[in-house]
Amino acid sequence: QKPLILIAGPCVLEGYERSLKIASRVKEIADALSIPYVFKASFDKANRSSINSYRGPGLEKGLKQLKKIKEELQVPVLTDIHQVEQVEPAAEVVDILQIPAFLCRQTDLLLAAARTDLIVNIKKGQFMAPWDMAKAVDKVVSTGSKRILLTERGVSFGYNNLLADMTSLPKMREIGYPVVFDATHSVQRPAAQGEVSGGDREMVPYLARAAAAVGIDGLFMEVHDNPAEALSDGPNMVYLDDLEDILQQVQAINRIVKDR
Amino acid sequence: QKPLILIAGPCVLEGYERSLKIASRVKEIADALSIPYVFKASFDKANRSSINSYRGPGLEKGLKQLKKIKEELQVPVLTDIHQVEQVEPAAEVVDILQIPAFLCRQTDLLLAAARTDLIVNIKKGQFMAPWDMAKAVDKVVSTGSKRILLTERGVSFGYNNLLADMTSLPKMREIGYPVVFDATHSVQRPAAQGEVSGGDREMVPYLARAAAAVGIDGLFMEVHDNPAEALSDGPNMVYLDDLEDILQQVQAINRIVKDR
Amino acid sequence: QKPLILIAGPCVLEGYERSLKIASRVKEIADALSIPYVFKASFDKANRSSINSYRGPGLEKGLKQLKKIKEELQVPVLTDIHQVEQVEPAAEVVDILQIPAFLCRQTDLLLAAARTDLIVNIKKGQFMAPWDMAKAVDKVVSTGSKRILLTERGVSFGYNNLLADMTSLPKMREIGYPVVFDATHSVQRPAAQGEVSGGDREMVPYLARAAAAVGIDGLFMEVHDNPAEALSDGPNMVYLDDLEDILQQVQAINRIVKDR
Amino acid sequence: QKPLILIAGPCVLEGYERSLKIASRVKEIADALSIPYVFKASFDKANRSSINSYRGPGLEKGLKQLKKIKEELQVPVLTDIHQVEQVEPAAEVVDILQIPAFLCRQTDLLLAAARTDLIVNIKKGQFMAPWDMAKAVDKVVSTGSKRILLTERGVSFGYNNLLADMTSLPKMREIGYPVVFDATHSVQRPAAQGEVSGGDREMVPYLARAAAAVGIDGLFMEVHDNPAEALSDGPNMVYLDDLEDILQQVQAINRIVKDR
Repeated sequence: QKPLILIAGPCVLEGYERSLKIASRVKEIADALSIPYVFKASFDKANRSSINSYRGPGLEKGLKQLKKIKEELQVPVLTDIHQVEQVEPAAEVVDILQIPAFLCRQTDLLLAAARTDLIVNIKKGQFMAPWDMAKAVDKVVSTGSKRILLTERGVSFGYNNLLADMTSLPKMREIGYPVVFDATHSVQRPAAQGEVSGGDREMVPYLARAAAAVGIDGLFMEVHDNPAEALSDGPNMVYLDDLEDILQQVQAINRIVKDR
Repeated sequence: QKPLILIAGPCVLEGYERSLKIASRVKEIADALSIPYVFKASFDKANRSSINSYRGPGLEKGLKQLKKIKEELQVPVLTDIHQVEQVEPAAEVVDILQIPAFLCRQTDLLLAAARTDLIVNIKKGQFMAPWDMAKAVDKVVSTGSKRILLTERGVSFGYNNLLADMTSLPKMREIGYPVVFDATHSVQRPAAQGEVSGGDREMVPYLARAAAAVGIDGLFMEVHDNPAEALSDGPNMVYLDDLEDILQQVQAINRIVKDR
Repeated sequence: QKPLILIAGPCVLEGYERSLKIASRVKEIADALSIPYVFKASFDKANRSSINSYRGPGLEKGLKQLKKIKEELQVPVLTDIHQVEQVEPAAEVVDILQIPAFLCRQTDLLLAAARTDLIVNIKKGQFMAPWDMAKAVDKVVSTGSKRILLTERGVSFGYNNLLADMTSLPKMREIGYPVVFDATHSVQRPAAQGEVSGGDREMVPYLARAAAAVGIDGLFMEVHDNPAEALSDGPNMVYLDDLEDILQQVQAINRIVKDR
Repeated sequence: QKPLILIAGPCVLEGYERSLKIASRVKEIADALSIPYVFKASFDKANRSSINSYRGPGLEKGLKQLKKIKEELQVPVLTDIHQVEQVEPAAEVVDILQIPAFLCRQTDLLLAAARTDLIVNIKKGQFMAPWDMAKAVDKVVSTGSKRILLTERGVSFGYNNLLADMTSLPKMREIGYPVVFDATHSVQRPAAQGEVSGGDREMVPYLARAAAAVGIDGLFMEVHDNPAEALSDGPNMVYLDDLEDILQQVQAINRIVKDR
């Protein structure tokens, strides 16, 4: 029976100490539930809505932090890359390279990531149908690599809103690669003029359970010990203190679905 | 621990024998799983896409069939009404009156149904937000009735497509009434020019499980012994033979979620 | 060169004097521009969001008002009907029967309206594609009637929002009947929790001009001498004082497009 | 009275001779109508749906072609850039740098383009609301540059479809910069699995006229002498032979609207 993997961490690296603290706590919870854990954090938020927002420590410092966390906790590490030049240095540190949703059609970025031979996690663009991801996969596969994850993170639904289409998960699975559900970005209200409705975080457990019930290979969640203080994506990140409860239910549901 | 109820049956009454056969089999399956069962069928499909489609036996004959099935199987019965004049005769037979999604803002129909003192199941319009249903509820409550079910059945997403927004279920629940998920209409491709993609039915089990994982009070599904022969909604109805498997998983997930 | 017709009036009849005042002023403006004018008002808003909203004078009183206005001003009159029983009495007074958007798939209502031999103006449902209207047309045509108008009034776009798809106009025209653009309902924010953004009315002139540039047979607009006082749809109705300016531009654009 | 500008050319550079031929013909037509003309073509289609599609001549060869066309015809030239490193070499040749819609939130690309002091044309992402563009503008303005164009090119509407929201044009204009309407990408069916409906091109004249009627500062269209042979975006490009007719109407409408 295949377990879910968990990809989790703060949205952006906020300094080594805090990132380590978050990662350690997630690892403890995941270990107790025998859930394989991948630490996730960004070194650069290259597409923040506003020019005034914190972007992260940058490539060099960020990779150093990721490397230390990886060694300290002995966990695999995932980060997202935005430019072709970032692929090589990031590949020296991380285990999974992530293609951001807005960039999932940028051929050169996909090819560069694919050529590292690392796992490439392609986030499905907010403007794409699940079946469209077959073409993104083709780009990776054209390099000979077949180490691919496909992540659903919500689809554009009117202005400043996303919906999580649960049928997207089995439809993407038909392409032939493991499918991940990103439960925290799916509740984002993109660029909602600073006033992001605080109620959205409360939807994360519902969507995480729903995705597990549909059947997924991985769950992606951004978590923080204090989202109110978080330097990016606070309104949709999950409190560390709520993580165990969410994962217990997700895991129980996963067992039912995969036991058939 | 609260069980789910199941509202199920063929889309439209296709003759007493066949309807009874379907209802009997659903009842057997539901009984074996201790799931309370409500038989559902329409006497008139008043809003078929095409003028050439079968509409059903009509009010009088249809209510007679519903009454016989109710007595024969000792199950509560639900049907949908489209005009104010249908409310009274239908109320003499059925246990739950259903307001069709397209008609969920027709004040007089809501008021007439509410005044019967039966349970009123209001389907959420494909053009409505979950929170909009509070106003439909207000109309029913204005009569003094509080016997209300709210049903999610998909929201308009581009042309000829619906999405099932899983966050709609907890958001509608906040209005204060039990929430039902309609797993078969949520996979409909409305008016898709005769050529409804056959793959949609395959999405029903995924969405039924997802809704159970989110947390619902009832599951609505249209079922048929042979959907290929069905006189309405064939492409999205579930095969009777698949029902037990779906319900087993839905029930197991329901337990996990409600056990907390 | 075919002129546009104008269908305009207050959303709901608010009393004979006020309705006559509005109709007279619109007629003056339309006459000066040689635009054929049809007076529009509802006797009953049968699908108001809220149970507490004003619904209108009702069938009997409303039809009397419409008849008096028709005779007084010698203008054709349009009203919308919601139940089959309303069709016959309304048909004795009005020149055009309108099927509301939410009801555009209710077969019996379409058939009853069609059988009066009056022109039937079918509003396109917010949940329908332009090509779906062919099936609504088939229902009317099945009675032998071919006196049909098709009206675009916006399509569901996320929650509590509509978009006006300008390509819908030529696509509906391909069905073979004259096409009307409803410029005031297209800027509605349906059921936006009481707080409908006042800025929407400002979008009406833009959309009216755009539709004329695409090519339409009729323009539908709800107008009021003081929308702030209007008993329905105030936030999207056009000020009577702005009507002439809008129509002048619309007419000039119409000439360019139809002159080819 | 402000004239429209025209930004037009083939989607991708297909060789100097053909590009020059197209540009020459567009220039003739634009000159005859006194419409200021900017030649547009891409040197690299960096986000083609499929790995197997033609991408263009690349940066170096492409810029050479653009430079020759610019000198030969004495027209300003626009191209789109996808990576920060492309900005500087492109800036040496072109007059307007274009940010692709998918990349309109990539801060570094916006900043690099802004710092060249050239005009930056930001295409609105298919996943963005018109008012969201204020933040993209802020990024450019943070460099001191105020030479900005904002282009509407359709918004995600369900899967594999776009709608052109005409109210987006005045709403973007409120941000304070000239607004361009891209009439050919607005009729695209993104990634529609190879089978892009050929009818879409027929919608271009309707949308171009509608946008002019709303009021725009520029019209963007991809044109080709034989779209059936085009190496990219054939199904939505306009035939050179149809351009004059479209522009005449657009210009006549523009005069009416701006004459007020």
